[in-house]
Amino acid sequence: MAIETPHLDLIEWPHDLRGMSVRELKLLADELRAETIDAVSHTGGHLGAGIGVVELTAALHYLFNTPEDILIWDVGHQCYPHKILTGRRSRIRTLRQGGGLSGFTKRSESEYDPFGAAHASTSISSALGFAVSRDLQGRKNRVVAVIGDGALTGGMAYEGLNNAGSMDTRLIVVLNDNEMSIAPPVGAMSGYLSRLISSKRYRSIRDIARHAAERFPRVVEHGVKRAEKYARGLVTGGTLFEELGFYYVGPIDGHNLDHLLPILRNVRDDAAAGPILVHVCTKKGKGYAPAEESSDRYHGVSSFDVGTGAQKASSSNAPSFTKVFAQSLIAEARLDDRICAITAAMPSGTGVDLFERVFPERAFDVGLAEQHAVTFAAGLAADGMKPFCAIYSTFLQRAYDQIVHDVAIQNLPVRFAMDRAGLVGADGQTHAGAYDIAYLGCLPGMVLMAAADESELVHMVRTAVAIDDRPCAFRYPRGAGFGITLPERGEVLEIGKGRILREGTTAAILSYGGRLQEALAAAEELAERGVSATVADARFAKPLDEALVRDLAREHELLVTIEEGAIGGFGAQVLHFLAGAGILDDGGLKVRPMVLPDRFLDHDKPDLQYEEAGLRSSHIVGTVLAALGRSEDPDSGS
Amino acid sequence: MAIETPHLDLIEWPHDLRGMSVRELKLLADELRAETIDAVSHTGGHLGAGIGVVELTAALHYLFNTPEDILIWDVGHQCYPHKILTGRRSRIRTLRQGGGLSGFTKRSESEYDPFGAAHASTSISSALGFAVSRDLQGRKNRVVAVIGDGALTGGMAYEGLNNAGSMDTRLIVVLNDNEMSIAPPVGAMSGYLSRLISSKRYRSIRDIARHAAERFPRVVEHGVKRAEKYARGLVTGGTLFEELGFYYVGPIDGHNLDHLLPILRNVRDDAAAGPILVHVCTKKGKGYAPAEESSDRYHGVSSFDVGTGAQKASSSNAPSFTKVFAQSLIAEARLDDRICAITAAMPSGTGVDLFERVFPERAFDVGLAEQHAVTFAAGLAADGMKPFCAIYSTFLQRAYDQIVHDVAIQNLPVRFAMDRAGLVGADGQTHAGAYDIAYLGCLPGMVLMAAADESELVHMVRTAVAIDDRPCAFRYPRGAGFGITLPERGEVLEIGKGRILREGTTAAILSYGGRLQEALAAAEELAERGVSATVADARFAKPLDEALVRDLAREHELLVTIEEGAIGGFGAQVLHFLAGAGILDDGGLKVRPMVLPDRFLDHDKPDLQYEEAGLRSSHIVGTVLAALGRSEDPDSGS
Repeated sequence: MAIETPHLDLIEWPHDLRGMSVRELKLLADELRAETIDAVSHTGGHLGAGIGVVELTAALHYLFNTPEDILIWDVGHQCYPHKILTGRRSRIRTLRQGGGLSGFTKRSESEYDPFGAAHASTSISSALGFAVSRDLQGRKNRVVAVIGDGALTGGMAYEGLNNAGSMDTRLIVVLNDNEMSIAPPVGAMSGYLSRLISSKRYRSIRDIARHAAERFPRVVEHGVKRAEKYARGLVTGGTLFEELGFYYVGPIDGHNLDHLLPILRNVRDDAAAGPILVHVCTKKGKGYAPAEESSDRYHGVSSFDVGTGAQKASSSNAPSFTKVFAQSLIAEARLDDRICAITAAMPSGTGVDLFERVFPERAFDVGLAEQHAVTFAAGLAADGMKPFCAIYSTFLQRAYDQIVHDVAIQNLPVRFAMDRAGLVGADGQTHAGAYDIAYLGCLPGMVLMAAADESELVHMVRTAVAIDDRPCAFRYPRGAGFGITLPERGEVLEIGKGRILREGTTAAILSYGGRLQEALAAAEELAERGVSATVADARFAKPLDEALVRDLAREHELLVTIEEGAIGGFGAQVLHFLAGAGILDDGGLKVRPMVLPDRFLDHDKPDLQYEEAGLRSSHIVGTVLAALGRSEDPDSGS
Repeated sequence: MAIETPHLDLIEWPHDLRGMSVRELKLLADELRAETIDAVSHTGGHLGAGIGVVELTAALHYLFNTPEDILIWDVGHQCYPHKILTGRRSRIRTLRQGGGLSGFTKRSESEYDPFGAAHASTSISSALGFAVSRDLQGRKNRVVAVIGDGALTGGMAYEGLNNAGSMDTRLIVVLNDNEMSIAPPVGAMSGYLSRLISSKRYRSIRDIARHAAERFPRVVEHGVKRAEKYARGLVTGGTLFEELGFYYVGPIDGHNLDHLLPILRNVRDDAAAGPILVHVCTKKGKGYAPAEESSDRYHGVSSFDVGTGAQKASSSNAPSFTKVFAQSLIAEARLDDRICAITAAMPSGTGVDLFERVFPERAFDVGLAEQHAVTFAAGLAADGMKPFCAIYSTFLQRAYDQIVHDVAIQNLPVRFAMDRAGLVGADGQTHAGAYDIAYLGCLPGMVLMAAADESELVHMVRTAVAIDDRPCAFRYPRGAGFGITLPERGEVLEIGKGRILREGTTAAILSYGGRLQEALAAAEELAERGVSATVADARFAKPLDEALVRDLAREHELLVTIEEGAIGGFGAQVLHFLAGAGILDDGGLKVRPMVLPDRFLDHDKPDLQYEEAGLRSSHIVGTVLAALGRSEDPDSGS
């Protein structure tokens, strides 16, 4: 379905906008919304956030001199309209596709993306860095951060507010308040913002004049002229943000350019020192009925039909690892009332929403607050509960110190369910679950597991319930399982014991986690080429199955380890053991650790990412043949 | 000097307190202060924080039924009086000594320490875990967290407040506001608290009655009776904490038991749902003149003379690594006005205070907010500055995701100066800088360096200035250097190149960081035993000096790697390279990676900690001899 975009067609870069009239800008905003919807209907991705900030995006680029003026979007998934207006419209239908545009802001993609963001709550801190740098270098450009109310629940945002509020650098923070992050809002701040908006403490025009004249001579003029028009959109005082040192302006209707433009223009031209917070209210999914009516406002969608809003179904029949985790945990929680589930603003992404439906008292969404989530879980564990902290591998990085200091050192039985381990597809490098094996493997006392398939995950959930004397973590990939039949109930695995799936004589492939099927396929292909390979699943990176490693080392010419993680993880544990135990001393064994390459991999389909990473069955075959000095000629073995 | 403590002598456990009169409790508090001062004068440690909360500690244990009632101290260094009252007085002069009491709260030490804390801002989260667990288990005990105003600048504290404020669980947070964390307070929150206290919006007795009667029937009675007495100490409303869902009580004079006891008793007996924040004002160092008059209020002290307050001088004549870092950075900053220094509330600990004296415009203390510190630095770097983030290895854990997401993925040239790398002595396991080589080594693009001595540190500061196209990090130990003559100015080291210090033939010892002197001593001893050893300093863990590693491997029977870090770090990088490059395939080389043991090491003198860790020269000798199959008989070589 072709959409007509006569105004948008005139825009290649933001400066093309700046000659438009306000009337034209409004028409452009409508076209920008339609273009965003159409693009995402093809690519899938984050829809609701972007179409909620169409007017705000247009207004910011209209008024501010980007890219000299710095514009930073918190959690870049609201940036699709921004990309369309900043030289990337021609590639917008490559969003999140291999070789295409990133689904987030990205420095390497455009000078209009001065700071990339895909994790939440970073924009105030980075913007403050730009603002202070500008002051030190004697420049005059503006710096604007746009942050959602969801991201404001992250402690890092508060750290940034607290620091900026005590400095006299000029910084503009736009709070995009859509009362909706990924899930419905949680936490006291959310309640506060709602009260702030609904309190209707809007001032009389005399008050507006008095209040705003102190700072914005021009807004008064506008205010007096248009008082009736945007009485809903003006200044209230005495807010929490003012207590934190910000000059507060708002709330403003973020879909009304007649309100946005005069306020933002005055904020832009304000010469006084110190930070300003502009409170803008928007509606996530605004202007697209299926999104507005959806419970998650089309936060993240697969490709869909624009007319009906119907999303394309996943092509897999197998349940996702997320769902298998949730169902397993629910089954265990029916038998043990000490089991709790904790999510940091990702109830549906982690499956904690399913758990919550059955056990609302034992499910906790603590907001975009991973640090708190982990130490809250540690407190639960210290008092005898059995908490499962369900946090993606990449987001668990936010709570690393809490894992070390509050969980590991105290040896508290917090269970970390690490979804999205390994490469994650369209979300790309910022979301890769690449480091957890290394950053947890160095911590004393941790039990580390990785699920090779969905059936293994069921066992590991039960095993994690049983490990009640120390912390443990288990990782599993993003997406659908392999369609393997699930056990009725998981078994309690023996701690630190792997398993052998295929017996061979020459090469041993020891897999940790989701590459096991690739290892089995490689063994099959190697057999065809005359190389007999053993395949084992380590199950545990820590404690390591030393007996298994020793046996594999003794009985084979070659030991290949493979994992969906970076250097320093499982392979490092194996090599450290082999070297320290003297098993490598006498030669006769070749070891080849296969890990993610030492570079950040772009978004693509996961299989293609693993192809790029060199971790598919063909790479295992190649590694084995090369190590054994056999020909890699594809015809030699068949 | 013997001190007389007739009341304190009656107390072994908190329940011994509870029969005392208020008059006796006041005398006991004075004795508790004297005992704390005397103990710390022998042991050194954190003094100001502890003697500032003597009355608060006595009041809490007097009124609350610890340990059934849960009492959690944020950053446990204020806990010495608490330890004296909870069965540990007899060991209080072993504080921070090997085998003695920890300088922080510690679960394994006492049931009165339900949750250990040595890093800041964790108490609200953990206390909320205890409170929710209590509710789920149907118990009725109270849960109290005591948090300082400094720790309140940490985003994690805000995450905890935000979550607790939206729940209806009963939780008491005592804000111990001494307008002083380790350094003078920074940030907008600090300014807010000051205004809150100084605004003197104290209510009339009628207002108090009206306000408090809603919640605390009994406080009204006390309030009416003693209105004049503690008019300064009662309820004000409409605070930021109330906006975040807490019932706010305060500010209260935290040194006046006549104010503390009735308020805390009412808070204790309050049956309403939801969290309460009690704002208590104390003076750090209270009651000991030398501390009150010191600029840092005797935050951390060495042993001292109680009469004069004079602290014992350090026994080393060599400058500390911290000072060498600061002076090197100042020297470089004189030549390059883009260099900035950032600290997260540790200006004196990191030497940023020295930098600030020379370059006040380019020094930034952002508060106890490591996450913000790192992304703020990333913003500075993105705009062309050269930021040095000076954060202890252990505290940098707090900013791990920011290092990954904001710095490494964007390849921004933020320089991480990681003080307190390796084992840190009296601060013990919570402060060990044990993991940074592993948690940074897995990140693509990072340049990782470790200073073998203070002269190397000078070179690495200059090298870090020169590395302007990617992030880098350099680590250095706590404490005094080796007394090595410092170069006039550092050299720019060749990236990824190590150096050989001693040539030998049989064993190669490849050191990364502060164990180099031990390696040289080991080589000396090995020579006496007839084993010729090469000693090399890797300087870089990433990029690894592969040529050096290859040469050492080829030319020796044995390669020992040694580092002041846990498994997964430098040794893992070396082994990964050796295995992947096939250098181990043919035998003939033994490799022995020496790393910190896989357990948490208790506090002790650093040398004794390294003895315990097995990383001293004798252990290197032992490792070499064992690997070579030589006798370890000490007489054999001499």
